[in-house]
Amino acid sequence: MRPTIVRSILRADAEHITRLGECGVATVHEAMGRTGLLEPAIRPIFPGARVAGSAVTVSCAAGDNLMIHAAIAVVRPGDVLVVTTSAPSSDGMFGELLAESCRAHGVAGLVIDAGVRDTAELTVMGFPVWSRAVWAHGTTKAIPGSVNVPIGCAGALVHPGDVIVGDADGVVVVPRADAGPVVTAANERLAREARTRERLKGGELGLDIYGLRDVLNAQGVEWVD
Amino acid sequence: MRPTIVRSILRADAEHITRLGECGVATVHEAMGRTGLLEPAIRPIFPGARVAGSAVTVSCAAGDNLMIHAAIAVVRPGDVLVVTTSAPSSDGMFGELLAESCRAHGVAGLVIDAGVRDTAELTVMGFPVWSRAVWAHGTTKAIPGSVNVPIGCAGALVHPGDVIVGDADGVVVVPRADAGPVVTAANERLAREARTRERLKGGELGLDIYGLRDVLNAQGVEWVD
Amino acid sequence: MRPTIVRSILRADAEHITRLGECGVATVHEAMGRTGLLEPAIRPIFPGARVAGSAVTVSCAAGDNLMIHAAIAVVRPGDVLVVTTSAPSSDGMFGELLAESCRAHGVAGLVIDAGVRDTAELTVMGFPVWSRAVWAHGTTKAIPGSVNVPIGCAGALVHPGDVIVGDADGVVVVPRADAGPVVTAANERLAREARTRERLKGGELGLDIYGLRDVLNAQGVEWVD
Amino acid sequence: MRPTIVRSILRADAEHITRLGECGVATVHEAMGRTGLLEPAIRPIFPGARVAGSAVTVSCAAGDNLMIHAAIAVVRPGDVLVVTTSAPSSDGMFGELLAESCRAHGVAGLVIDAGVRDTAELTVMGFPVWSRAVWAHGTTKAIPGSVNVPIGCAGALVHPGDVIVGDADGVVVVPRADAGPVVTAANERLAREARTRERLKGGELGLDIYGLRDVLNAQGVEWVD
Amino acid sequence: MRPTIVRSILRADAEHITRLGECGVATVHEAMGRTGLLEPAIRPIFPGARVAGSAVTVSCAAGDNLMIHAAIAVVRPGDVLVVTTSAPSSDGMFGELLAESCRAHGVAGLVIDAGVRDTAELTVMGFPVWSRAVWAHGTTKAIPGSVNVPIGCAGALVHPGDVIVGDADGVVVVPRADAGPVVTAANERLAREARTRERLKGGELGLDIYGLRDVLNAQGVEWVD
Amino acid sequence: MRPTIVRSILRADAEHITRLGECGVATVHEAMGRTGLLEPAIRPIFPGARVAGSAVTVSCAAGDNLMIHAAIAVVRPGDVLVVTTSAPSSDGMFGELLAESCRAHGVAGLVIDAGVRDTAELTVMGFPVWSRAVWAHGTTKAIPGSVNVPIGCAGALVHPGDVIVGDADGVVVVPRADAGPVVTAANERLAREARTRERLKGGELGLDIYGLRDVLNAQGVEWVD
Repeated sequence: MRPTIVRSILRADAEHITRLGECGVATVHEAMGRTGLLEPAIRPIFPGARVAGSAVTVSCAAGDNLMIHAAIAVVRPGDVLVVTTSAPSSDGMFGELLAESCRAHGVAGLVIDAGVRDTAELTVMGFPVWSRAVWAHGTTKAIPGSVNVPIGCAGALVHPGDVIVGDADGVVVVPRADAGPVVTAANERLAREARTRERLKGGELGLDIYGLRDVLNAQGVEWVD
Repeated sequence: MRPTIVRSILRADAEHITRLGECGVATVHEAMGRTGLLEPAIRPIFPGARVAGSAVTVSCAAGDNLMIHAAIAVVRPGDVLVVTTSAPSSDGMFGELLAESCRAHGVAGLVIDAGVRDTAELTVMGFPVWSRAVWAHGTTKAIPGSVNVPIGCAGALVHPGDVIVGDADGVVVVPRADAGPVVTAANERLAREARTRERLKGGELGLDIYGLRDVLNAQGVEWVD
Repeated sequence: MRPTIVRSILRADAEHITRLGECGVATVHEAMGRTGLLEPAIRPIFPGARVAGSAVTVSCAAGDNLMIHAAIAVVRPGDVLVVTTSAPSSDGMFGELLAESCRAHGVAGLVIDAGVRDTAELTVMGFPVWSRAVWAHGTTKAIPGSVNVPIGCAGALVHPGDVIVGDADGVVVVPRADAGPVVTAANERLAREARTRERLKGGELGLDIYGLRDVLNAQGVEWVD
Repeated sequence: MRPTIVRSILRADAEHITRLGECGVATVHEAMGRTGLLEPAIRPIFPGARVAGSAVTVSCAAGDNLMIHAAIAVVRPGDVLVVTTSAPSSDGMFGELLAESCRAHGVAGLVIDAGVRDTAELTVMGFPVWSRAVWAHGTTKAIPGSVNVPIGCAGALVHPGDVIVGDADGVVVVPRADAGPVVTAANERLAREARTRERLKGGELGLDIYGLRDVLNAQGVEWVD
Repeated sequence: MRPTIVRSILRADAEHITRLGECGVATVHEAMGRTGLLEPAIRPIFPGARVAGSAVTVSCAAGDNLMIHAAIAVVRPGDVLVVTTSAPSSDGMFGELLAESCRAHGVAGLVIDAGVRDTAELTVMGFPVWSRAVWAHGTTKAIPGSVNVPIGCAGALVHPGDVIVGDADGVVVVPRADAGPVVTAANERLAREARTRERLKGGELGLDIYGLRDVLNAQGVEWVD
Repeated sequence: MRPTIVRSILRADAEHITRLGECGVATVHEAMGRTGLLEPAIRPIFPGARVAGSAVTVSCAAGDNLMIHAAIAVVRPGDVLVVTTSAPSSDGMFGELLAESCRAHGVAGLVIDAGVRDTAELTVMGFPVWSRAVWAHGTTKAIPGSVNVPIGCAGALVHPGDVIVGDADGVVVVPRADAGPVVTAANERLAREARTRERLKGGELGLDIYGLRDVLNAQGVEWVD
């Protein structure tokens, strides 16, 4: 029950992290058997935001960002902060000053189940953030919480060191130990999709490529003119 | 009760469809007596998205896009897919591969009361989509539904062949048989607005142009200093 | 109880208004002791929208914009319309024609706890709007209300002549009589933040700059490896 | 496009309607292949509310109940009013006086994708209502609409004369022509469930009754201690 | 800008308050020209909750109930606490202990644009509460705010001493100075409704009682068989 | 990554579980330092619902309840099922038949971040459920997931064997190892509250009991008449 800051965490292989980021959220989520997504309410603050990195988890009280400051003391370059709160809140728990601090320590981005502010400045900085809200409301720096413990964040379970991938389609969490197999499955999926893409571009129907005419028949769907 | 795919539908006059698209959603909706709009939660995935075309309606189970594949087998160039689901869902039922297939068959755009994914790619393609959510979550291709039957979609009633107009202000449905009269009414409204616009730009007040001072007086509104 | 249009209102000092706009919403809100924000659901219709001006308050029936027309009769250049409604509504109560009228009379922007339409045109015009919704639905011009009376708008209390500041982070209301002290407090905060920013950019931790290590210790937060 | 009140509609067989009401919403929806439900936001105003009857459809402007008054002129005893609006609204479009009028004409209940008021009185009367909201806000009686035309209501398509079934689990729409087959399928389902219920009460597992152990194995689910 | 507790407020006539409570929220709101309602999200915590009293307004920081404690120091028997917060929050800012304190000082009820807890106990006590949420989350007692200043609460403007009426249909605010005229208008409305009710019970149609057949004709609504 | 059903879990001391249930959600949450609550959207399906038991965690695909059936194979009397899904969903994943099965195996209740159905029957049975929605929509029994692995559920982290407490104020999760200390802290809090309750009933103010007059002064709150 005691609030705790864990300094050292295990991280996934750097090449796996990079490759998962290249594959993108939808592909990675499919490669994991359609699991691992944060809720759709978690949205990027600017178009084109992309990130892949190791989760440094942060558990805050709603409206208090003390533990985000603490987390920056234990990050390594390339990490992604993943912040949850004890209660739903739209408060702007992170802004331009914290982003400058993150940049100085190599933090690659932020995922937060709450609000952020200074989004115009964050966009100019190119610091990628996924949040539930954008709002100016300020926060205190007074209430204890934990860093680098397992958290529930926006419907997903996140362990420290899990790989976080974010893009226009949302955010997905890859358990650290699964990074390698997921890269393999994602690569296979992309190769398969490349072949399908060419056939679809050529005008072939998904009905034929995926064998769906049989599915329609088996389900009793009727074709009429 | 039997799920059905209807191959042939009647469409509105092509010139009417084009003109409705030029008039835009707000004008068309006004010309229809302020009816026909889909709910405001249905939003375009990129700024500048515009479409006008004939509705090919699709009724899917939530989280299953089998019937979207079926619909592409019956579209004609210029059609707009209009997809509803059996239950509220944010799943990404449509993405880049389906958009390539749509492009190959001339589909002009998509309106869906659910989620879409690959929105970065769809934006680069310039494929216009209006949806309730953007999310990476994948779907099955297994559950029967219907194509080109009347559907309820985001608060509106859509028949196959109705004219769908979408822009930054949302999506409006024009019953096929009304396309001509609505074009006429919309043209009249635009001409009237052009005259009003010049007067407003010159500093005249809406109070005077629309005769609203009498309305205020009749309602007992008091002017004080 | 009688609906009323008040022609003359007191406004804050023009230099204070300008400076509050430069400081931005987050800073002004902090300078006011973390008060004065409208709800986070009130969002700008285009990136980069910014405004600062004197509130001309408008109380409308839901789905009726008669009183917005009345308000334009009493504005002065630089004012910001602040519109509330008697019931929650997404209707597009303001569009391009009203924006032209606003421009002709020098209105600097609009804040509305309802919907707006013609957002593509408003964006081209560069007319800044903060609203709860974007939707084409039209409105009547028939139901009485008031202009320049105190209103409750999106969770905040707004008096005519209060200073309205809007940017990417939302909208804040500064009571007219507080404009001067808030400018002073905001300037001090910005100076303090400038110094902190340099230290953070240099790699110092917020934990050290703000003395938060003591807070963590006092709260019993444990550091572990 | 012209607003219309249709006086005469076809209705389903009275015994089918009664039996569908006895089966309840969940069973009927399953018997229809998991289709026909209104959105989950449509809730009964008191515990124990139940209804089954023929839909008299009503299309209103948001905030205007003129067409509900018109609908009462064409109902027959046992009918259920199904009301949709042109825009999302929480206004209380129906209250105790209208309920008295409904009672006088034998209307069995109301389904409305908007608000209702006087819910304390409606509860005492035992008049069953399913609505999106409960709110006191009043409405006008001025804007045209239609009665007994097909409508989209809360995500479902409703034709006049369709069978409406409502209970604690929501509202389902049975197309008029399907009432008989749905009764048959629902009866079969209830008989099957009665047998399953006894086995479950006796402690047998769903895993065994439904053969789900094979499903788990086929999907690669692992049992561990 | 300085947070303030105002000890003395003016209250409306006690008989007017009582009568407004008897008339109920819908009638009072209509008698005020369809104004004064709080948003529909503000709901009673138990069926049958009713209240009428003078508003003691409370402005709190989200998640902090210090000022509710302060407010109880200035209430008089029959008052109703009306609480708003600086940011949206579901925290349970009020529970059984505060209700005991309210009871000891004669507070008649609570309206709060936030959460409450101990609702089982509050129900047993019969202490009426209207809130946005029910949730156990606790609050601090540390952040300044004001008592008995004008506030914006759930979309409405509330001045100290305004009459608050709450029932199953929501909450309405009657400006103190309007209490008398609103009672008169409400009484007239109830008398009119009593006559209408009898006619409706006798089977007369609203179409005939309100003269709506002419409205339908004037609007071009067509009757068909 | 492989879906797994864990048969054996550790549970907290039975007396601790019972006592936590007696203390109730608000007290337990406070005793844990204001942590552990599920989101406020998770609500009981009938008034008076209460539960305390050991969590058997279930991770399902949205719209598929295969793993709930699997979970009943590993429960022990007194356990509480805690179900999360891979995507937001209102589907009725649990109903009367599953409740009969739960009863037969001694399951004390259900917490589910999705929908339930047959709520009238569940209420008659007295089977307590906390859910995000009540809706008739049916589910498949086909998609793999896990039982008794850590899950993120409605904003909280739940490990198998954690103590789940639910009542009218929501649901709280007590980590298994903390059950004893939390009982102690909760008992102390209840004793303190009993003394405070008597003083409040006697008319003493919270301002005096909690020493809040000093807080108000320190924060610069002004008292005026």
